Amino acid sequence: MSRQTPKASEPKKVSCDLFTLTYGSLVAQLIKDYDNAEEVNKQLDRMGYNIGLRLVEDFLAKTNSGRCHDMKETADKIQSAFKMYLGISPSVANWSAANDEFSLLIDNNPLTEYVELPDHLAQLKYSNLLMGVIRGALEMVQIEVQVWFVQDSLKGDSTTELRIKFIRKLEDALPAGED
Amino acid sequence: MSRQTPKASEPKKVSCDLFTLTYGSLVAQLIKDYDNAEEVNKQLDRMGYNIGLRLVEDFLAKTNSGRCHDMKETADKIQSAFKMYLGISPSVANWSAANDEFSLLIDNNPLTEYVELPDHLAQLKYSNLLMGVIRGALEMVQIEVQVWFVQDSLKGDSTTELRIKFIRKLEDALPAGED
Repeated sequence: MSRQTPKASEPKKVSCDLFTLTYGSLVAQLIKDYDNAEEVNKQLDRMGYNIGLRLVEDFLAKTNSGRCHDMKETADKIQSAFKMYLGISPSVANWSAANDEFSLLIDNNPLTEYVELPDHLAQLKYSNLLMGVIRGALEMVQIEVQVWFVQDSLKGDSTTELRIKFIRKLEDALPAGED
Repeated sequence: MSRQTPKASEPKKVSCDLFTLTYGSLVAQLIKDYDNAEEVNKQLDRMGYNIGLRLVEDFLAKTNSGRCHDMKETADKIQSAFKMYLGISPSVANWSAANDEFSLLIDNNPLTEYVELPDHLAQLKYSNLLMGVIRGALEMVQIEVQVWFVQDSLKGDSTTELRIKFIRKLEDALPAGED
């Protein structure tokens, strides 16, 4: 009859294996539903976007983060968010000359553990949920970005590289009363 | 460019929030697909079953567990597995007189955080994946059980109670050479 709950200060965690297998069930269901890799990519991005809208509030509350003043700061926050939510720290690399575009290099993507893509799903962006999460989370803090995969270890690349490009600040979306 | 990976001995973890929201996307997709709570329950159970088949191997490897000699031992293992994979320790309670049936009382089900069921989904067993996971995992170790929800805090009950009943040992399924 022992019962243990995490302390309030400790963020609650679940096993990566359970998450990975549950995510796999989601992707498999979408493949069954749409039978079209492009459409599955779109759905994963849409779901990730909705998750990002929710997670960013949690992130801001837990980290007590202020506004980012440039993309370097934004990249740092994204890196901490990966640590906080996925338990990994991707490298930030390959900055553009204008510092408006960078890559996240993910060596140990937990989403793709145990996964092998069959040939007919070569167009599938298996981890596209991540792309949506980043897009949604940043949009909630008035940063519009474009996110895409440059490399994907599932497709035989040596790493997974997610590229993030700043598009614009969404000034109009600021709630009244904020600076 | 800092990069941290968990030590090999430390099981990898992801945030409960990310898991909960991803599971929510899965349930929402199934509702969209089947538009019928009974069918969604069935699909969640099926997915959980497949996850259970995989997780049990991981559990046995990590805990170095031997064969369970009775349902009391099985209940203890299930309790540890909840701790290991979901980060919670449900209470084991309400044993039947024959010790072949017990309940898991889950006070803080991470799957249902942020969730409210709309009226038209009153028949939905939102956490049915768990039922399937238990069923699948035990079947892999030659224990056939029946699992069902007795109470569900999502439906206004004071706790979530999962009932597990021993049906039979699957002797025939033992690999040749094992006792």
